[in-house]
Amino acid sequence: MDLVIANGTVVTATETYRADVGVADGKIVQIGGAMPSDVPRLDATDRYVVPGGVDPHTHFDGRSQGTSNADDWLSGTTAAACGGTTAVVDMCFPERGGTLRAGVDEWHRRADGKAIVDYGFHVTVLDESAAVAAEIPSVPDLGVSTLKLFMAYRGSTMVSDATLYRALRLSVERGLLCLVHAENGDAVDLRARELVAAGKTAPKYHAVARPPRVEAEATARAVALAELAGAPLYVVHVSCAEALEEIERGRARGVEVYAETCPQYLFCSADDLDRPNFEGAKYVCSPALRERWQQDVLWGALRDGRVQVVASDHSAYNFGQPDHKPRGRDDFTKIPNGVPGAEERMTLVYQGVVQGKLSLSRWVEVVATNPARIHGLAPRKGTIAVGADADLVLWDPSARWTLTQPALHHKVDYTAYEGLVVQGAPDVVLSRGEVIVRGRQPVAKAGRGRFLRRQSRPVPTPVGA
Amino acid sequence: MDLVIANGTVVTATETYRADVGVADGKIVQIGGAMPSDVPRLDATDRYVVPGGVDPHTHFDGRSQGTSNADDWLSGTTAAACGGTTAVVDMCFPERGGTLRAGVDEWHRRADGKAIVDYGFHVTVLDESAAVAAEIPSVPDLGVSTLKLFMAYRGSTMVSDATLYRALRLSVERGLLCLVHAENGDAVDLRARELVAAGKTAPKYHAVARPPRVEAEATARAVALAELAGAPLYVVHVSCAEALEEIERGRARGVEVYAETCPQYLFCSADDLDRPNFEGAKYVCSPALRERWQQDVLWGALRDGRVQVVASDHSAYNFGQPDHKPRGRDDFTKIPNGVPGAEERMTLVYQGVVQGKLSLSRWVEVVATNPARIHGLAPRKGTIAVGADADLVLWDPSARWTLTQPALHHKVDYTAYEGLVVQGAPDVVLSRGEVIVRGRQPVAKAGRGRFLRRQSRPVPTPVGA
Amino acid sequence: MDLVIANGTVVTATETYRADVGVADGKIVQIGGAMPSDVPRLDATDRYVVPGGVDPHTHFDGRSQGTSNADDWLSGTTAAACGGTTAVVDMCFPERGGTLRAGVDEWHRRADGKAIVDYGFHVTVLDESAAVAAEIPSVPDLGVSTLKLFMAYRGSTMVSDATLYRALRLSVERGLLCLVHAENGDAVDLRARELVAAGKTAPKYHAVARPPRVEAEATARAVALAELAGAPLYVVHVSCAEALEEIERGRARGVEVYAETCPQYLFCSADDLDRPNFEGAKYVCSPALRERWQQDVLWGALRDGRVQVVASDHSAYNFGQPDHKPRGRDDFTKIPNGVPGAEERMTLVYQGVVQGKLSLSRWVEVVATNPARIHGLAPRKGTIAVGADADLVLWDPSARWTLTQPALHHKVDYTAYEGLVVQGAPDVVLSRGEVIVRGRQPVAKAGRGRFLRRQSRPVPTPVGA
Amino acid sequence: MDLVIANGTVVTATETYRADVGVADGKIVQIGGAMPSDVPRLDATDRYVVPGGVDPHTHFDGRSQGTSNADDWLSGTTAAACGGTTAVVDMCFPERGGTLRAGVDEWHRRADGKAIVDYGFHVTVLDESAAVAAEIPSVPDLGVSTLKLFMAYRGSTMVSDATLYRALRLSVERGLLCLVHAENGDAVDLRARELVAAGKTAPKYHAVARPPRVEAEATARAVALAELAGAPLYVVHVSCAEALEEIERGRARGVEVYAETCPQYLFCSADDLDRPNFEGAKYVCSPALRERWQQDVLWGALRDGRVQVVASDHSAYNFGQPDHKPRGRDDFTKIPNGVPGAEERMTLVYQGVVQGKLSLSRWVEVVATNPARIHGLAPRKGTIAVGADADLVLWDPSARWTLTQPALHHKVDYTAYEGLVVQGAPDVVLSRGEVIVRGRQPVAKAGRGRFLRRQSRPVPTPVGA
Repeated sequence: MDLVIANGTVVTATETYRADVGVADGKIVQIGGAMPSDVPRLDATDRYVVPGGVDPHTHFDGRSQGTSNADDWLSGTTAAACGGTTAVVDMCFPERGGTLRAGVDEWHRRADGKAIVDYGFHVTVLDESAAVAAEIPSVPDLGVSTLKLFMAYRGSTMVSDATLYRALRLSVERGLLCLVHAENGDAVDLRARELVAAGKTAPKYHAVARPPRVEAEATARAVALAELAGAPLYVVHVSCAEALEEIERGRARGVEVYAETCPQYLFCSADDLDRPNFEGAKYVCSPALRERWQQDVLWGALRDGRVQVVASDHSAYNFGQPDHKPRGRDDFTKIPNGVPGAEERMTLVYQGVVQGKLSLSRWVEVVATNPARIHGLAPRKGTIAVGADADLVLWDPSARWTLTQPALHHKVDYTAYEGLVVQGAPDVVLSRGEVIVRGRQPVAKAGRGRFLRRQSRPVPTPVGA
Repeated sequence: MDLVIANGTVVTATETYRADVGVADGKIVQIGGAMPSDVPRLDATDRYVVPGGVDPHTHFDGRSQGTSNADDWLSGTTAAACGGTTAVVDMCFPERGGTLRAGVDEWHRRADGKAIVDYGFHVTVLDESAAVAAEIPSVPDLGVSTLKLFMAYRGSTMVSDATLYRALRLSVERGLLCLVHAENGDAVDLRARELVAAGKTAPKYHAVARPPRVEAEATARAVALAELAGAPLYVVHVSCAEALEEIERGRARGVEVYAETCPQYLFCSADDLDRPNFEGAKYVCSPALRERWQQDVLWGALRDGRVQVVASDHSAYNFGQPDHKPRGRDDFTKIPNGVPGAEERMTLVYQGVVQGKLSLSRWVEVVATNPARIHGLAPRKGTIAVGADADLVLWDPSARWTLTQPALHHKVDYTAYEGLVVQGAPDVVLSRGEVIVRGRQPVAKAGRGRFLRRQSRPVPTPVGA
Repeated sequence: MDLVIANGTVVTATETYRADVGVADGKIVQIGGAMPSDVPRLDATDRYVVPGGVDPHTHFDGRSQGTSNADDWLSGTTAAACGGTTAVVDMCFPERGGTLRAGVDEWHRRADGKAIVDYGFHVTVLDESAAVAAEIPSVPDLGVSTLKLFMAYRGSTMVSDATLYRALRLSVERGLLCLVHAENGDAVDLRARELVAAGKTAPKYHAVARPPRVEAEATARAVALAELAGAPLYVVHVSCAEALEEIERGRARGVEVYAETCPQYLFCSADDLDRPNFEGAKYVCSPALRERWQQDVLWGALRDGRVQVVASDHSAYNFGQPDHKPRGRDDFTKIPNGVPGAEERMTLVYQGVVQGKLSLSRWVEVVATNPARIHGLAPRKGTIAVGADADLVLWDPSARWTLTQPALHHKVDYTAYEGLVVQGAPDVVLSRGEVIVRGRQPVAKAGRGRFLRRQSRPVPTPVGA
Repeated sequence: MDLVIANGTVVTATETYRADVGVADGKIVQIGGAMPSDVPRLDATDRYVVPGGVDPHTHFDGRSQGTSNADDWLSGTTAAACGGTTAVVDMCFPERGGTLRAGVDEWHRRADGKAIVDYGFHVTVLDESAAVAAEIPSVPDLGVSTLKLFMAYRGSTMVSDATLYRALRLSVERGLLCLVHAENGDAVDLRARELVAAGKTAPKYHAVARPPRVEAEATARAVALAELAGAPLYVVHVSCAEALEEIERGRARGVEVYAETCPQYLFCSADDLDRPNFEGAKYVCSPALRERWQQDVLWGALRDGRVQVVASDHSAYNFGQPDHKPRGRDDFTKIPNGVPGAEERMTLVYQGVVQGKLSLSRWVEVVATNPARIHGLAPRKGTIAVGADADLVLWDPSARWTLTQPALHHKVDYTAYEGLVVQGAPDVVLSRGEVIVRGRQPVAKAGRGRFLRRQSRPVPTPVGA
């Protein structure tokens, strides 16, 4: 045994109990009972010992529109780690005209030598070519278990219903799971043009261009296509009651649909888009931020299991860099979409525990266990069990601190939650048994993170088989 | 340490992994790691080690209408144990005009010296008197965390909306959870009378008297009253899509509603009520059995979390005893309601795993973990974690056997699943570290079961508090 | 021929066209074509000629709680007539313990010699006695085609689900239509008590005691009972989207459900209940007034046919009479419920035409044609067709005036719409060919109104039969 | 006066009454009263006098896929007339790359000299070119008040969401109404290919390729786009509960949506697609025929106004002509879509009256009045009122006859209702006062029908304006 986490209170998606945790070779080997006396101990008195967070939706080092994200794999995973997250799954965008494999290769190049936590890739189907469709069945061989498709961003990443339907059909055969960005790209595009033509160019019109119905419509469509294809579906960044209702209707018809939301939809609102001095641009993301009451709907759905996952959708563009957010100063459609959140995510959702909206176990479930299970990382990630990776966070429930830009570790130049006083903090973070964060400061070596080959969807098999 | 469960595959609501489990003083003390060598070992090779089942809805030794249930606490808990269940919560019916406390006392008398697994009581509010309402706030002092109310059985157990609303309001203040039997008793009663008056007296008319809308209406009403009272709600034995829809609509409005179903709704249908030679009477329970397609809806809802619990609603009346089922030979309204299932429950739901409808973890969750959590038995029951009671089942996933009356241990004279070939069986069952079933045969002493004082609903508190 | 309405623009529920209308013996005998030259002419230049309004929900001379309504049959029908309404159906309340027939007899006594427009009675089933149930089948013999049942007012008019279900069943057999006041009386009563106990006694708490869910629940229940009984249903005074949704769900399941709303729900809101100086009491009616956005929902539903009828629910209690509204000065539960509206109704709904929310035909349909059809008064009332009663209004679409107490003809001492500037007015009103209102002033003789024996629900029959 | 229809029973959407009807210059000039004695009389004893039917969805002389419809404007309008229909609105398909105006011109050429009843055109937006979008605002100048867009038939008539959204936006500005064929063309196309590739080529697979969800999804999308555009919407040929639910949900959100169904969805089912000897091909239309229970849903929705219109969607391809239905003998995707029904329509819907599903007035409303109102033909067509065209049917309610091919007047070589015994028949049909059908036989001159310039959507205006 290499390490004992001693005197802590273990929290999993199922239960909370006091026990020591023994680690060997980067894995959890013993919970409770007598630990060998000659092993180093990490004291977890007054700490929750929780599974490292799993963030299944990040955009690190994305490059498009002549620029690249503010956060690369080093700063991005460092931020994630400092927030308690020990595994991420990033959105890989192949080149149009290129192969999916080439896209994954490129993503390996970007992450290699930089990531400090373990990582996987979703592969995006951007290209409606027959060659790309033909390549889908081999995606599991790349260690990738998920496809991403966009119903938004007409003329850019948006795919037709035909491409989505075909991907869903192929996914069934290969145990893949399709993720969709659900907004009606055509309607958004035309609405945005009308607004700009009418001189309505401020960031707040971003939300006017893409109201809840735009999201709900596409969600309903994706659910219907999944139903027709007999396929499961995962809807990223659900922002509103209207979209959630469509997911629930699909479930009632027997469709297997998962819902993910993000911290910005739980804490911010359309009002933020109207902040003065162009500060609203910091809050431009898609789907757009909603009216404040929608937050309660999402918290309620997290509580009772209708939303399974909180991901960050970390997508970082600087407020002070001319070719980032300021690009849209005179035209909101030119503001790069995205809000950072990899580091803030677990702490923000924990405020739900503080405020009595979520149980401790439910918090762990939505930030770690469910993302791991749904995205093919269980049982290695997302839980505290014998045999699992020793990705652990010593969470200090009594810490009280303020989210501010200097307190965070991303490279992007702002946080959307500036000044928010929070309770609870990731004190010590371990990845495969190695301490990578201590006192919320990174102590890990760049490049120590490893690529996670993810399992395709499990089929139940008898124990002896 | 007193015992090691060795070489098994642990299954919890969250994960599946190989680990030995160490038991001391009736509790789980260690999972994985080196076990002391001088401790007795129970070999679990080729077995799943799962938490003992928690059945939150039984009727043992109920006495009404001049007769009593076929199963008392000895036969009932023996059947439960042989089916893998190590804790039950039984419906306690106080006398009308008496106190709730007196009802609980009487239930203690019935269970005492007989039960072989641990047990708790729900206390039923039958009596609309002010005295009973006044007693509700003291229910937690009895070790009881739940109230049961009937919207059905007009002139007998049915309460008014006023009594239900008042109970819901009081439950909020005291951390109680109200359970409702949701059927519109007035409509059922009048429909049944019309049918009997028209000479429609066979068992199959039981389902005609109480169609899905009767259940859906009352479910909607209970959800609305819970919403108005700001209270959580638990709907027992949900049988159909129509009722489930009302629960889902409530959740979308922010109401905390739990749904329980039963094996009979997953495996039987209204067709069974039409079995020849009055055999349909064996299947008379309320809500009534539904059309076959409804089973798929319930399985789907179990899979994705819209139904949280499978309870047995074990209510045993003999087919061959004149004052039991035969009482209604000429009038279906006189057939005592109920189907046995305490022993069959876990095995039946496991068929969902065999058929790919549920994951292993989800099976554990709906038969053990969720019932424990929702009914105030966590973290002692329903999971495998350090500190939990060593209520464990060594489940043989490769066993193939046939559900038949001789193979079962209840005293009631039939099983509703006669002849059903199943896979998977509870081989060895432990309660607080003691083997109480071996090879599906009971080896426990009557009366070893203990009363479980159940926790009222938890309020999240910081770890150091 | 006795009279020609010349030069007007006829508006019916179906169309608008220019034509003269010929009247003989109180009936319409000719539309268009050459009219006899020797007949008196009423010039309708610049006027719409519309069917006299049918108000199917009034409370004239109601007596309860030791007092009686401010309006008796003379003032009530005078107000109605001056507002363009030429037929009313009033709610008859039999004595508890008495027969339905005795109730109807009493209502005849009250109306006789006073009413200036034609009238019918709904008979209320207040009494759960078997004798009353037994009398229901003979209701059509009284010239009454509708029953009214209350799900609200616990301890007073509220009936059980059993009584409602039984009434629905009997109604099917006799071609009757059941009207329900849909609010959960138990929940309302307990909520109101809690509020008063907490010192929340002002009129605005009336709306807190009976939120939309209270109405939606009872509506869902009534619809479910109608579905189970195979009966049609008419829901009076629908006030909110939540209740309307339940009606629409019922229709989608094949239930024949009609919805009525009232002017107060289209023009007033919960804010009015908070008017200073106890003025909120003027707006106390049940269901309670709702948030303002609900008005748009109701207008939309009127437009597209989901709500079929606008009735006044005229229920008049004086603001300045000690035993009327002031009775509840210290306790909102003691404020007599009701808002006057018999005279304001047609003008108020006409504002929907002015504002483009309703077509002219749809206005006629909801204030005249549909009430007549649904309540068994067609083809005599509610339309302009050969053979119909010459109940006609010469409507001045260009009139602009202000709703104020002095401008109205009811005896109650206030109007809820004081100061509202409106467009359009009933200039001349004819009942059976006789001018009863001229220039919005009554010119009719008390007691000229006749009792309308209403048809039970029509069964289509071939023309020659 | 030119003609008196004497002794009949007039039926309109609002009422039924006995009155003579006087006609002059092709218009109704007098209803009831003394008619001039020197005018020819048409005796209507024992007849209902109903408005001539308005069929707002026909395909006469359509030419595509190298062939043309079996019915041209002469046979098509003759069939319509013999069925009691006196006005049709046909789907005009412009050439791709051509202008809308050129399409309308071509349609004039086809109808000119042939039509025996009056007619209008819907103009189809097939072409996503900017030129076509730019032409939309001038469509009202062509006498056309409606646009038609297809969401089905990928690679052929299907348009993108962008084109649909843009058309909806433009329609608001010009008072146009958009009609949509709502099926997800992408999903249909891929499903059909899969079926054919699997050797499932028989006509019955047509329904498998396009299940209800395919229609419901597109309906939901069209409703959402209309909501976003602030535009009204008309959904053609609604076939199932799933699609209707989406329309109702839209209405509840305030969207103005109209629903049309067709006789084949009221009388035929998916079973018909499985008729032996390729006879199923006769029933291939899109949306596909549904399970039988769906018929009840549609009849219920017709009754209570959730479906407003029954159109024929007459689209005629011969069963015995090689390049018509037989083209798809080995591949259902090649079967030309369409079922004839112009002549059967009014009689078929009348069976609803015979069976008590619809009132007489509701029948008139859905086959004549509503189509006229919604499609800009009121007040000229669709009703019996002074000033309206004297398009009248003397309907014999006691006729009992059999729908068979020889009894009908279309040119297509089959009827889908062969052998159906019906009650009620159009005996005499008048168009603008001229008898065009007598004893169900045509007596009209080819080309007597006139083009109907249709009004754009009405805005309520005061009477004197």
